[in-house]
Amino acid sequence: MDEIEIHEFKKAKLNEPVMIEGLPGVGNVGKLVAEHIIHELNAEKILELYSWHFPPQVLVNNDGTVSLSKNELYACKSKEQDLLILSGDQQSVTNEGHYLITETFLDIAQQYEVSRIYTLGGYGIGQLVEKQTVLGAANKTELVEEMKKYGVEFREEEPGGSIVGASGLLLGLGQLRDIPAVCLLGMTSGYLVDPKSAQAVLTVLCRALNLELNMQAMKDRAEEMEKVIERLKEMEQAQVPRMREEELGYIR
Amino acid sequence: MDEIEIHEFKKAKLNEPVMIEGLPGVGNVGKLVAEHIIHELNAEKILELYSWHFPPQVLVNNDGTVSLSKNELYACKSKEQDLLILSGDQQSVTNEGHYLITETFLDIAQQYEVSRIYTLGGYGIGQLVEKQTVLGAANKTELVEEMKKYGVEFREEEPGGSIVGASGLLLGLGQLRDIPAVCLLGMTSGYLVDPKSAQAVLTVLCRALNLELNMQAMKDRAEEMEKVIERLKEMEQAQVPRMREEELGYIR
Amino acid sequence: MDEIEIHEFKKAKLNEPVMIEGLPGVGNVGKLVAEHIIHELNAEKILELYSWHFPPQVLVNNDGTVSLSKNELYACKSKEQDLLILSGDQQSVTNEGHYLITETFLDIAQQYEVSRIYTLGGYGIGQLVEKQTVLGAANKTELVEEMKKYGVEFREEEPGGSIVGASGLLLGLGQLRDIPAVCLLGMTSGYLVDPKSAQAVLTVLCRALNLELNMQAMKDRAEEMEKVIERLKEMEQAQVPRMREEELGYIR
Amino acid sequence: MDEIEIHEFKKAKLNEPVMIEGLPGVGNVGKLVAEHIIHELNAEKILELYSWHFPPQVLVNNDGTVSLSKNELYACKSKEQDLLILSGDQQSVTNEGHYLITETFLDIAQQYEVSRIYTLGGYGIGQLVEKQTVLGAANKTELVEEMKKYGVEFREEEPGGSIVGASGLLLGLGQLRDIPAVCLLGMTSGYLVDPKSAQAVLTVLCRALNLELNMQAMKDRAEEMEKVIERLKEMEQAQVPRMREEELGYIR
Repeated sequence: MDEIEIHEFKKAKLNEPVMIEGLPGVGNVGKLVAEHIIHELNAEKILELYSWHFPPQVLVNNDGTVSLSKNELYACKSKEQDLLILSGDQQSVTNEGHYLITETFLDIAQQYEVSRIYTLGGYGIGQLVEKQTVLGAANKTELVEEMKKYGVEFREEEPGGSIVGASGLLLGLGQLRDIPAVCLLGMTSGYLVDPKSAQAVLTVLCRALNLELNMQAMKDRAEEMEKVIERLKEMEQAQVPRMREEELGYIR
Repeated sequence: MDEIEIHEFKKAKLNEPVMIEGLPGVGNVGKLVAEHIIHELNAEKILELYSWHFPPQVLVNNDGTVSLSKNELYACKSKEQDLLILSGDQQSVTNEGHYLITETFLDIAQQYEVSRIYTLGGYGIGQLVEKQTVLGAANKTELVEEMKKYGVEFREEEPGGSIVGASGLLLGLGQLRDIPAVCLLGMTSGYLVDPKSAQAVLTVLCRALNLELNMQAMKDRAEEMEKVIERLKEMEQAQVPRMREEELGYIR
Repeated sequence: MDEIEIHEFKKAKLNEPVMIEGLPGVGNVGKLVAEHIIHELNAEKILELYSWHFPPQVLVNNDGTVSLSKNELYACKSKEQDLLILSGDQQSVTNEGHYLITETFLDIAQQYEVSRIYTLGGYGIGQLVEKQTVLGAANKTELVEEMKKYGVEFREEEPGGSIVGASGLLLGLGQLRDIPAVCLLGMTSGYLVDPKSAQAVLTVLCRALNLELNMQAMKDRAEEMEKVIERLKEMEQAQVPRMREEELGYIR
Repeated sequence: MDEIEIHEFKKAKLNEPVMIEGLPGVGNVGKLVAEHIIHELNAEKILELYSWHFPPQVLVNNDGTVSLSKNELYACKSKEQDLLILSGDQQSVTNEGHYLITETFLDIAQQYEVSRIYTLGGYGIGQLVEKQTVLGAANKTELVEEMKKYGVEFREEEPGGSIVGASGLLLGLGQLRDIPAVCLLGMTSGYLVDPKSAQAVLTVLCRALNLELNMQAMKDRAEEMEKVIERLKEMEQAQVPRMREEELGYIR
């Protein structure tokens, strides 16, 4: 096995596609969006990437079969805009791997003459989010202005310093290759998978790509999650007084 | 020293052997089973594998001599089924090492034209196990069905996501090489070496391999362990009130 | 991408320059000094160094654009002394990277026929510093004596054992190449960015280089920081009794 | 800089020397013994080994100069037995480095036709040691018997499983090269530098090597340490009631 191993199933014929990256991360926001797009557009898997920089483990699927840790690239032709969608179940667990795997995907982006990259993720604020917000960062000044038109917010203090992993490196290493790239970060608590934040990111992305997508599946997941959060809140409120009693009993 | 160093003592003449992996892990279940089979079938050591991905240490044997961290492969011819048994005192401590060492053993498996791989381990549930259960995962759909016949359980929620280390990677990397492989995980608390869980795994494995083995040594170890657990339970019960008194005395 | 990648913008024509290193570290003392000098002398950036040993992330600038983790080298000609100034937003996060990146900068130092290296940093003492002090270490005995003339203190017990990272390795690896190098460490609490300590280090460095610099910007930052510390002290004093009440209320 | 870099000052002319390793470790026992022998026999430094597997730092000496992390090899001719003594201020901080650096020293051992290796260290038991004891391990059965004659103890349960680092790997990797090697571990608390334990190890080693050494310096250090321990015990006894009072005052 090589350090990075690519299993290419098919060369897609795409016209200056946009690459969308949604790998696991904060609130799983990026991955939720990428998977939704893959599903709704019926995108086709064109390659898998394996690497010893991924965790040394297999995922067990619901049917009892296993899948080795990997990243996957999907392709999709559409009237508005051809797409390459990068998703997967893991990011690198080593420093070096993050750089090398990102470079590999930038090589592929260049082979496909990608016109722009959107990286998607969550920005954890440590508390429940009241108003859905999508923060942005870009590797060219003019992209910042363009993104503001689609409702992306750019704030001096946020996303507080740095963007870690593939979502950040595709911008940083893309800059060195002069590939325009934007990062869209959905504000999220950071504690839970957050389909509501994913919905906000997806809305902005569709606007930017002039893409119409059925959002129902994402809305359903967001509503389910809302119910989970309500239950968690109730449990928390119910638990606080009980805990206090125990402590009192314990000290006396 | 190379990154991975193989000391081969002998080429075994085997007929489409099955490879069984039992390296250290949760409850030491896999290793207990592998060692029992090696001992009962009087299997012969055919190679040792050393690597700088193992911990930088030696084990001290009871006679005062030392053994460098290693993995070992044993061979055994039998009427029912020839076997290659992989055991050892360590697994890789690096991410990369896990992949490279597994690939090395898959190379050897292919040289010996292995027909199937069984990887063995424990699945820790964080509490004492009431009913011995063997959970499974496989790298081909048809193996799932076959294994159910031998009493292996496949559950949607368990083994909760992922199988880490050699037991998982032999399936995942074996899948890429089209080598059929099954993982058998004995349910165990995860806190103690668990020969009882090992006995359950061994029973299933013998059924699958149509192998008859004297199980007495394993039963004896399981009974000994039962006594240890009884003592631990008693100690725990005895200790709780005493601890409370101390705390009270401490606070007053 | 190579393990270490250098983007050289320009070969500077310098006369036996002195190299000054100020990378992020304790109290950010070194970086504050390096940035002040770069700004005041209007030094020109001559190269950037990227490496997979830096954290896999981008910094988000205030205007919404991003910068990949990097080190930077600036050049500046002046009447008294030509300078090469090394700064950046990161140090290596791997053991190996620390050595390799330092070696790379020593190669560059030798190409420019650097006459001496000054490395700058903070020495954290775990409490607020009463009297600003600059501690020193050097890779040649005669440098110790020379530095004492500029007010650098050398103490048997301090800087307690070892100097970690680029500030230390430039001295240690420089010693093997016979490049004279001095480390100046401003005493600092270690809890906060410390422009006051940076001011003390800068004062000593200017004396050693016979350099006159406008210190106003640094003084302003130090004064701002003083105010922050005053506020923190007040908050702490205000909080202590409040916290005690809570605890009492909580226990009763 | 190479991964491992050797600066050889001199080829020593030695007759089947014994190699003694005493690098930093538990209670610093091994290093104390090695340094004592180097000093008493006036051994000559013949090489230094640098590596990026050592911590990326320099030590600051009492005179303000610095030393890069390194290992050192000393040679000494004597009537009884020529010696090669390995000491230094660091061990590898990476897994791989431990193996590679040990292999490098075994290469050197073979160049010098070393007849045997003694590795020295401490065995931490988590409490003050009542009776000085030296535990042993060896990479050949006959060495176990020989060592018992010099007062080395071999116990089934101790040194509890494994010997980590150079002291262990010189035995384990030495075994693969058929170089006889013994590890001597002085029992020690593990909390403090322990010259008394070092004295015990040195006594056994001198007996085994038929070497007479002035032990006064070691005895003096051991006595100093005894005083430190007495003071620590007194402080502890004095502190316990004081702490209790504080707690009472705090709770009421």
